[in-house]
Amino acid sequence: MNTLHQSFSVRFTYDVYFSDRLFESTNPTLLDFLQKHHSEGFRKKLLFILDEGVTTAHPELPDQIKTYFSRVSIVDLIPDLIVIPGGEGSKNDPLLVDQLVEAVDRYGIDRHSYVVAVGGGSVLDLVGYVAAISHRGIRHLRIPTTVLSQNDSGIGVKNGVNYRGKKNFLGSFAPPTAVFNDAHFLATLDDRDWRSGMSEAIKVALIKDQAFFVWLEDNAEKLAARDLEAMQYLVHRCAELHLNHIASGDPFEMGSSRPLDFGHWSAHKLEQLTDFEVRHGEAVAIGIALDSVYSQRMGWLSEADTNRILNLERILGFSLFHPALDGDGVLKGLNEFREHLGGRLTIMLLKAIGKGVEVHEMDPNRIREAIGILKENETQPV
Amino acid sequence: MNTLHQSFSVRFTYDVYFSDRLFESTNPTLLDFLQKHHSEGFRKKLLFILDEGVTTAHPELPDQIKTYFSRVSIVDLIPDLIVIPGGEGSKNDPLLVDQLVEAVDRYGIDRHSYVVAVGGGSVLDLVGYVAAISHRGIRHLRIPTTVLSQNDSGIGVKNGVNYRGKKNFLGSFAPPTAVFNDAHFLATLDDRDWRSGMSEAIKVALIKDQAFFVWLEDNAEKLAARDLEAMQYLVHRCAELHLNHIASGDPFEMGSSRPLDFGHWSAHKLEQLTDFEVRHGEAVAIGIALDSVYSQRMGWLSEADTNRILNLERILGFSLFHPALDGDGVLKGLNEFREHLGGRLTIMLLKAIGKGVEVHEMDPNRIREAIGILKENETQPV
Ligand SMILES: NC(=O)c1ccc[n+]([C@@H]2O[C@H](COP(=O)([O-])OP(=O)(O)OC[C@H]3O[C@@H](n4cnc5c(N)ncnc54)[C@H](O)[C@@H]3O)[C@@H](O)[C@H]2O)c1
Ligand SMILES: NC(=O)c1ccc[n+]([C@@H]2O[C@H](COP(=O)([O-])OP(=O)(O)OC[C@H]3O[C@@H](n4cnc5c(N)ncnc54)[C@H](O)[C@@H]3O)[C@@H](O)[C@H]2O)c1
Ligand SMILES: [Zn+2]
Ligand SMILES: [Zn+2]
Repeated sequence: MNTLHQSFSVRFTYDVYFSDRLFESTNPTLLDFLQKHHSEGFRKKLLFILDEGVTTAHPELPDQIKTYFSRVSIVDLIPDLIVIPGGEGSKNDPLLVDQLVEAVDRYGIDRHSYVVAVGGGSVLDLVGYVAAISHRGIRHLRIPTTVLSQNDSGIGVKNGVNYRGKKNFLGSFAPPTAVFNDAHFLATLDDRDWRSGMSEAIKVALIKDQAFFVWLEDNAEKLAARDLEAMQYLVHRCAELHLNHIASGDPFEMGSSRPLDFGHWSAHKLEQLTDFEVRHGEAVAIGIALDSVYSQRMGWLSEADTNRILNLERILGFSLFHPALDGDGVLKGLNEFREHLGGRLTIMLLKAIGKGVEVHEMDPNRIREAIGILKENETQPV
Repeated sequence: MNTLHQSFSVRFTYDVYFSDRLFESTNPTLLDFLQKHHSEGFRKKLLFILDEGVTTAHPELPDQIKTYFSRVSIVDLIPDLIVIPGGEGSKNDPLLVDQLVEAVDRYGIDRHSYVVAVGGGSVLDLVGYVAAISHRGIRHLRIPTTVLSQNDSGIGVKNGVNYRGKKNFLGSFAPPTAVFNDAHFLATLDDRDWRSGMSEAIKVALIKDQAFFVWLEDNAEKLAARDLEAMQYLVHRCAELHLNHIASGDPFEMGSSRPLDFGHWSAHKLEQLTDFEVRHGEAVAIGIALDSVYSQRMGWLSEADTNRILNLERILGFSLFHPALDGDGVLKGLNEFREHLGGRLTIMLLKAIGKGVEVHEMDPNRIREAIGILKENETQPV
């Protein structure tokens, strides 16, 4: 009997809104969105899940949310706003997955209702996962509250939780229904979180957009001094570049090329080696430095460009070395990355600022050499 | 700052192969597939998960699989073939999800390797779910072994497990990489499982294909007498109609119309009311009878057509009534279905054989009347 061929496309669309103080009573952004997506006969519920780090920094937030929705008649806010711990720990705790799935069940959140996550990348990854697996996917709104989540993780299509210490072992590809970037949240980040997300902007500038890299150089002092206006531009442009990349490439990563993982093969390993004491963005900054110096040693990237990259990172306040780079721990990361990709390595490196190059091998001795250079730089006054 | 718009499409393709005795050493189907998908530099692993009901009926199967792959050099068979209990119970046991995720981790099954499920719809739904959430989606091969899974569940895009007794509460949309329908497995089904999957063929014929319905009438005696050749045609045509429907409609069910759920609103409730003692396909046969009689009472479907439907089901050996239909339990299913759809009901009913009609309301009194008619028919000699 003849073979049957199946083939279809699924279209995904969502908007990323930029606003300031989303839940002020006069801010129309959310209300406009809900009205646009309202349809006669359906009554949508909103289940809010909040990052405890956010509610600690913004104690007025839960009441603000309740007040905001008390005036919105077309949806039903679940009055119990769920607050969960923020940070990587939330992705390590399987009980949180259970607790949130249980809430989806208890409050009867159906596939036309919304699960709304307010928080950093960790809480967004966890909540996105719960929304994706409940009822085969509930509509999901994201309100990212860190630089990293506003310019990268929160606007993308991936979610995930850790499993027995393995980063993002469980997860899925599930685009959000909408993302709302609220600049006001960024003001309360601690310095490490303010800084760390900027490495994703450096990353995407380096492989996609030379002009953006120059802008980063020109505004580095302002960004280091926590200028919110400069940060808003950084977030917007970085988000735009990430979105374009996702749409034009391989959104659900069915192939094995991962250009946006520039600087990430060693970063993932460094996070793990330090038990996540090093933040994702901090590790990426080191990974970028490492792969830039490596690209330079291989003769692909000029010394001048290499120094511009290292300088920008230094001005932004990043460390470019970590003691966990000593020893061959991080080299194991290369093999794990190879395995993760299914046997064949594809790594993005640099030819110039704004221009990446994909390779399928990296030379361990040259990597060690690059690590040595970073270590030396770090211990010497600049 | 201006809103960013994201929009992209993801293409999904897979083939459904039809064969007999897949694991006989001379059968090239699987080998051909693996060769076609082989690419230099990648080494794929195959992790097999088998339905215990299948290995009980085919005790030689594990050795056959090992022998088959001992001659295939381009992939690595994980020598530990995992056998799990079959039937709905496997979807109720959260420990099985853990056990399988753990195996994916232990054997280092990456996104380019395959998780292969051999079994009925229940085992396929469970394994498909595990494959979908591990590493954000591992390639998944399905070898369905029941009529229902070969003609409907196993060739589609959904997976799922139950959560605290709630059917398919956790799951996702994740198309398989390929499906292999092996007719040989059908011979060992018990009579109830042989029969029950045929209701999905009646369902899809009724809403999509009058000619197929006539074919079912013409071959009903053969099918009831377990003629394997007739069954192979039924499975192939039913699978084809399901595949076409998925591709031309709304594959990931983002809207709320569900034409292929004809007969299902009451079936889901009946399964639950009887604690899954009634099989899915058996419940669907009753649901079809109920919605057909309802359609007739509403004046949409002729009495002659209604009788043809009930007759076909009777000849195939289906019961058209179950005591759990007494009382208003099943009517609650209508409300649950409404909630599940997000507030607005969309139900497929019949205008003629091969022609559905969507409605947004059902009259409870007419439903009670239709149940009464089915009950009366059941207790009277035909
Ligand atoms: N899904 C993806 O595509 C993707 C991409 C990159 C990174 N990630 C993941 O994102 C996570 C990192 O996210 P992150 O960098 O946003 O950090 P985070 O979510 O771990 O948050 C860091 C800390 O900041 C607190 N916090 C959050 N918002 C705050 C605010 N406005 N004011 C004060 N404190 C606040 C949190 O409570 C937490 O303690 C990692 O798990 C990483 O793997 C995911
Ligand atoms: N994912 C979907 O789109 C979809 C669609 C319809 C139904 N389903 C699900 O499918 C499940 C029902 O699947 P099913 O009808 O295939 O039944 P099943 O998987 O529950 O299997 C029934 C019994 O048959 C045994 N068995 C399987 N193959 C056999 C063989 N070849 N020989 C002897 N015994 C065998 C099993 O061990 C089990 O005991 C339900 O959970 C239903 O919800 C899913
Ligand atoms: Zn990153
Ligand atoms: Zn069905």
